[in-house]
Amino acid sequence: MNRRVSSISIHEPPPPTRRRSSYATSVSSRPHPNRRSSALSAAEQGDVEPVSAAQEAVAEEIAEIKRYEDFTTIDWVQDAARENQRRKARRQERAGFFEREGRLGWRRKVWEAYDAGQGWIVVTLIGVAIGLNAAFLNIVTEWLSDIKLGYCTTAFYLNESFCCWGAESGCAEWHRWSTFWPLNYVLYIAIAGLLAFCSARLVKSYAPYAAGSGISEIKCIIAGFVMKGFLGFWTLLIKTLAMPLAIASGLSVGKEGPSVHYAVCTGNVISRLFTKYRSNAAKTREVLSACAAAGVAVAFGSPIGGVLFSLEEMSSYFPLKTLWKSYYCCLVATAVLAALNPFRTGQLVMFTVKYDRGWHFFELPFYLLLGLFGGLYGAFVMKWNLRMQAFRKRYLSSYPILESTILAIATALLCYPNMFLRIDMTESMEILFLECEGGHDYDFLCDRQNRWSMVLTLLCATVLRTFLVIISYGCKVPAGIFVPSMAIGASFGRMLGILVQALHESFPESKYFAACAVGEVCITPGTYAFLGAGAALSGIMHITISVVVIMFELTGALTYILPTMIVVGVTKGVAERCGKGGVADRMIWFNGFPFLDNKEEHTFGVPVSRTMTVNPTALVATGMTVREVERVAMETKYQGFPIVEDRESNVLVGYIGRTELCFALERARNEQHILPTTRCCFAAPDDGRRASASTPPATDSATAGQPSNLADFTTYTNPIPLSVHPQLPLETVMELFKKLGPRVILVEHRGMLTGLVTVKDCLKYQFVAEAHENPREDRGARVGQERLWEVLRRVAEKVAGWSGGRLRVGERGGGVRGGEGEVELEDRRDGL
Amino acid sequence: MNRRVSSISIHEPPPPTRRRSSYATSVSSRPHPNRRSSALSAAEQGDVEPVSAAQEAVAEEIAEIKRYEDFTTIDWVQDAARENQRRKARRQERAGFFEREGRLGWRRKVWEAYDAGQGWIVVTLIGVAIGLNAAFLNIVTEWLSDIKLGYCTTAFYLNESFCCWGAESGCAEWHRWSTFWPLNYVLYIAIAGLLAFCSARLVKSYAPYAAGSGISEIKCIIAGFVMKGFLGFWTLLIKTLAMPLAIASGLSVGKEGPSVHYAVCTGNVISRLFTKYRSNAAKTREVLSACAAAGVAVAFGSPIGGVLFSLEEMSSYFPLKTLWKSYYCCLVATAVLAALNPFRTGQLVMFTVKYDRGWHFFELPFYLLLGLFGGLYGAFVMKWNLRMQAFRKRYLSSYPILESTILAIATALLCYPNMFLRIDMTESMEILFLECEGGHDYDFLCDRQNRWSMVLTLLCATVLRTFLVIISYGCKVPAGIFVPSMAIGASFGRMLGILVQALHESFPESKYFAACAVGEVCITPGTYAFLGAGAALSGIMHITISVVVIMFELTGALTYILPTMIVVGVTKGVAERCGKGGVADRMIWFNGFPFLDNKEEHTFGVPVSRTMTVNPTALVATGMTVREVERVAMETKYQGFPIVEDRESNVLVGYIGRTELCFALERARNEQHILPTTRCCFAAPDDGRRASASTPPATDSATAGQPSNLADFTTYTNPIPLSVHPQLPLETVMELFKKLGPRVILVEHRGMLTGLVTVKDCLKYQFVAEAHENPREDRGARVGQERLWEVLRRVAEKVAGWSGGRLRVGERGGGVRGGEGEVELEDRRDGL
Repeated sequence: MNRRVSSISIHEPPPPTRRRSSYATSVSSRPHPNRRSSALSAAEQGDVEPVSAAQEAVAEEIAEIKRYEDFTTIDWVQDAARENQRRKARRQERAGFFEREGRLGWRRKVWEAYDAGQGWIVVTLIGVAIGLNAAFLNIVTEWLSDIKLGYCTTAFYLNESFCCWGAESGCAEWHRWSTFWPLNYVLYIAIAGLLAFCSARLVKSYAPYAAGSGISEIKCIIAGFVMKGFLGFWTLLIKTLAMPLAIASGLSVGKEGPSVHYAVCTGNVISRLFTKYRSNAAKTREVLSACAAAGVAVAFGSPIGGVLFSLEEMSSYFPLKTLWKSYYCCLVATAVLAALNPFRTGQLVMFTVKYDRGWHFFELPFYLLLGLFGGLYGAFVMKWNLRMQAFRKRYLSSYPILESTILAIATALLCYPNMFLRIDMTESMEILFLECEGGHDYDFLCDRQNRWSMVLTLLCATVLRTFLVIISYGCKVPAGIFVPSMAIGASFGRMLGILVQALHESFPESKYFAACAVGEVCITPGTYAFLGAGAALSGIMHITISVVVIMFELTGALTYILPTMIVVGVTKGVAERCGKGGVADRMIWFNGFPFLDNKEEHTFGVPVSRTMTVNPTALVATGMTVREVERVAMETKYQGFPIVEDRESNVLVGYIGRTELCFALERARNEQHILPTTRCCFAAPDDGRRASASTPPATDSATAGQPSNLADFTTYTNPIPLSVHPQLPLETVMELFKKLGPRVILVEHRGMLTGLVTVKDCLKYQFVAEAHENPREDRGARVGQERLWEVLRRVAEKVAGWSGGRLRVGERGGGVRGGEGEVELEDRRDGL
Repeated sequence: MNRRVSSISIHEPPPPTRRRSSYATSVSSRPHPNRRSSALSAAEQGDVEPVSAAQEAVAEEIAEIKRYEDFTTIDWVQDAARENQRRKARRQERAGFFEREGRLGWRRKVWEAYDAGQGWIVVTLIGVAIGLNAAFLNIVTEWLSDIKLGYCTTAFYLNESFCCWGAESGCAEWHRWSTFWPLNYVLYIAIAGLLAFCSARLVKSYAPYAAGSGISEIKCIIAGFVMKGFLGFWTLLIKTLAMPLAIASGLSVGKEGPSVHYAVCTGNVISRLFTKYRSNAAKTREVLSACAAAGVAVAFGSPIGGVLFSLEEMSSYFPLKTLWKSYYCCLVATAVLAALNPFRTGQLVMFTVKYDRGWHFFELPFYLLLGLFGGLYGAFVMKWNLRMQAFRKRYLSSYPILESTILAIATALLCYPNMFLRIDMTESMEILFLECEGGHDYDFLCDRQNRWSMVLTLLCATVLRTFLVIISYGCKVPAGIFVPSMAIGASFGRMLGILVQALHESFPESKYFAACAVGEVCITPGTYAFLGAGAALSGIMHITISVVVIMFELTGALTYILPTMIVVGVTKGVAERCGKGGVADRMIWFNGFPFLDNKEEHTFGVPVSRTMTVNPTALVATGMTVREVERVAMETKYQGFPIVEDRESNVLVGYIGRTELCFALERARNEQHILPTTRCCFAAPDDGRRASASTPPATDSATAGQPSNLADFTTYTNPIPLSVHPQLPLETVMELFKKLGPRVILVEHRGMLTGLVTVKDCLKYQFVAEAHENPREDRGARVGQERLWEVLRRVAEKVAGWSGGRLRVGERGGGVRGGEGEVELEDRRDGL
């Protein structure tokens, strides 16, 4: 429950007051907005409580100050209530306008249409922006990727395929850097290093948040977490610039994660320009879900896949309205991309495969094998990548640029000799997916003589790329894991396909292959590559239906929908057994974000009272002096305070957030010149109910008299916070958090405040319960890390010695944490 | 709040007791399962409350009696809690077993694996059953459809395409009934009437619930409504038998709705065989969602489309676990269907289209036109179909068989002359989708000379089919609206496509068509048909993403994904403006099912206290005599009763359902021989809390003394019902109902019971609010209906006169409602 000290400072003691009379006026002139008691009686009489203009103004003002602070979670319930109030006010205003003017003029009509259509205008703008950005990135990335191998003599800014437009394989206009291969090798490595350096430099200097994939953070943000700057303009700019550099550097990283990130940034930046979204964090989240979908849509050229990805992976809150918005956003973004046609093929994606042959039931066992591979691949990579991340966090966080550069150089060094690793991952996938017949035969991939050397090369590519993904994913450049995983799956799949083909050709008469016509080509290794890619993607992300649709939209292989589903199904089954959650979920867990995963189901069998903060610091409804309240606000770090009627009865009457409280105090001091001894009023006594109670209320006289030395804070409190019974099962409370999304749930027993529970309290309990069930042993891992670091340091020292001391690494020793500009969220776990 | 009187009758006075001692023993021997107070203190001390075997037994027993009654809603919260308790008990049992035996034997392991995998076993079985059933239905439907036109001389059970396997168009083995066309016409009509008669007869005699599409009912059932028999074995059987008959009769009805229905029936019937699902209605709903997905999947041969349909349209509650189950169920069902290969084409669907040409940006305006058509078509059909339904309900409900037969005869009469209406709808769609080049040219569809007559024929087909759909959908045979809508869209689309083609050919040089190469074919009318089908489907169901995926999976037209999305997007936009909700939602509204649509967003701006039942009939925790309790149960019709500590304080301490209360009373009478004067105890006093309260509890002495004349009903009560503050906005309460799914929410203010709110209360308020905003005028419609009925009656009398009085219609006059076996749900709206 600790949180960072609020930016609104509290001066104590406040300046002595002079304009006392003005305060008294302001108190009496303001209509007492005691929503609770007045509406309760009104409700029973059945008349609608009008929203006065003054009340609305106050609400607007609170909405303005209620901009959520960094590393907190938003309150969906409150935001929804505010949106409802806004709509109601709008409606009443309209009715009033109609009464006044008699009819609606065209200006009013246009304004109303604009107001109603604001959401769609925003989504359209965002879609267009994302589409444009995607087209730009596609072109730049391809050009930069090819620059490692050579250049175009006709125009330096053309990549190989544009340079040699129409030619089958290479042309005279496209020059290799040199005819001497070792020089090419060296240049390849040097350019790779340079690109990675630039990328990491940009990220470190301008937008540290632009590093990595961003998917796990966005998941938390969409669920309601606040991370200022993560979706800001600078992050957008730097991610857009650094991403092509990182991908072109040949690092084993993909563009899909970053693509989602820049799309969501775009959405955030554009939606901020519209009032509807500026004041409502919950509504903005809907747009962000749509943006995440569009990000995937443009990255893969798969609009429906994008929507499903957003639904399956990104969004904890996905009402159908969001589905429809996502659909529209994806449509606009992909349509713009299609109109710009960056690949000049009229296709949204780099490759479309057509398989002439169908599949046979006897291939099922091999498909199962592919599924098994996918699941194991995912589990293996996640396990070791998490260890690598821990190592990186512990030892490498001060050297992000150096790390990326060295990684890129090492990757180039290792990859150049392998024909599938040398070229761009997307390109290599395209080659692997192709049928042998009629297609262009890259480096004799289909040659029967080459078969065994191909199998070896593909095996090497699989193993090497897996290793590179483990060490590269998470380094401080924009880096996704989708495409590398797919490339690994494709190389493994193609290998398996070639083996199956060999098997069939060795025993063509076998009963097992009876479905094949004798003498005809029967097995298509390309389809295995295709299925392998899907399996690996599903294995790493733990998604199913979106993978099937994405694969489907990538290639249009309609006849292979059942095999794809089977492979992905097996992968999912295997992956589930190997551990829960995809790589994004693991990263959330690793970073300690306050995120309740709605994929998980828990059985704790304990009531909420087990996890709640018992007897939280509460404010008394009336009677506390300003000084006392300020002391409470200063001395505690809680994010908000329940309000009770009095300390004895402990009857819950409301809740006030820390932000609101501080703002209210400050405002009162500035405008009304309150004294430290002024009494505060947080909730008006509840007359309506009291009548039926047995004892007469003690505070009634105070209210009736309306003493002028009462600072009224009732407009800043929430008189109806969500509250539950202490015996309610923890699972139900977690469902409430997941599905309604309040910031805090109060625990109330027979009207009395008993406790307070937040998402973090639930997560804490969950962690403890899980640790109790599966005690983790990471001592060994830590020792291993220590040793690895020792080795790396020695190497670095040697290198430093050779280079004349210019490179100085490791001086600050192990355990360095959180360099400047470093994204270090773990420590802010308490910020909830 | 009224409900039907419970089947458990309450005898008053109960038989006088004799075995008094045994009751006393039973009271003292039973561990006082006062979960509330004991666990509260335990919670604060931090130890886990063990679930005793006795407690578990009671829980099992309650689960057994808590089988929901007809026309009520299930309680998701309670069911989830029960499932959690079951799991916890299982875990404890396992721990105990481990301690006792030292290790787990293989038998135990197998048992555990079975228990864990039960869900998957069930889904697999269901998938297989659905796949088999679908294959059977496909074959039978095709055969029956062709029987109207002729027969196969080689084997009577073959349809035309199997009879003439391999031949392009017709063969000698397939005989028309006669060479004389008027005789063919008469036979066509006669067979159509006969098939419809059989179908309606089956439905009326054996399973009235098998009539119609079933989608709206299933939507409500998945949301938690209980309709006994709707998913029963008889419904399954009759739906399976009557559906091919209805479709083959040529009625303008489709197989998708019924397909969903029989799939869900299959799921229900099979899952009932497993304990896990028998005792948990909420878990069963997850399986039913998966079944709905599989139903669409096999109907369209579109596994992913099925999952998305279930997500978008059917399921209000769709956690990711359900997504994954649906995925698996669809996979199994379609794999079985593919393996059986009912069409002998190796395809899942009847047709796969390949479009060689891409689309051009200049075609966009025509696509927009198609979208517009889709939206308007949906709005038009829904409006008039609802009126037709009202008419049917009012006047035709006693003549279901006659109605269907006459409809079929009229349809045959009208359709035979039109070449696109004569054949099966799926077949006609296939023809309309085809490209002109290379395909087989059905009746010179592609002929340039025929162009204008084709346009006319297609226009006729569109208008006629629309009219037929309006009057046919909802008649008392299994009938869906998907395929007819698609067929209408396809005929309209093809017409538009031909017109566009003509336009292009008239002005080939125009700038507008600059994207077309001169002299080449540029416009593909088949794609317009394809897009039109998607638009009409989207317009009638108001679904988007699932339509795109279904169209995509039907045809594999990957290049047309953007046009499809655009068309469906426009349709959705138009449809939204014309009224909310698809045909299923309108039917729900029409039938008055208690269904909270989570697609809708409301802004009422009132607190829940406006809709709640104020001061509901409550029971007192201790002190009421059995006679008093029985009187309350007898005299009120409420579905359950809140429990308060005493009448004065009105402190809420629990809730008991009527079913549980009646069961508890009956059981106590049978086993314990209670007296009418025995005092009932519904909730133990809350010692833990009381200590801190100011006044000493009055009932403490009674509890401490444990008087033997106390009937303990605490095990049957829910000590922690969901409760909210009276001022909570109604929208939030509706969110709670939608997202958590409790049966009832209590309204509690400062611990005191203030009211009680159910889904129906919310709906009532919603209806009133909507009616207030848009007052509906249906006086005119009613007068129109009256006139139509008058005309029909006269015609019927004439016919009866001619037929010698054998046909006697209309004697019972207008306003006949609810014939025997009639599905009349409206009157049971109060059953919530």
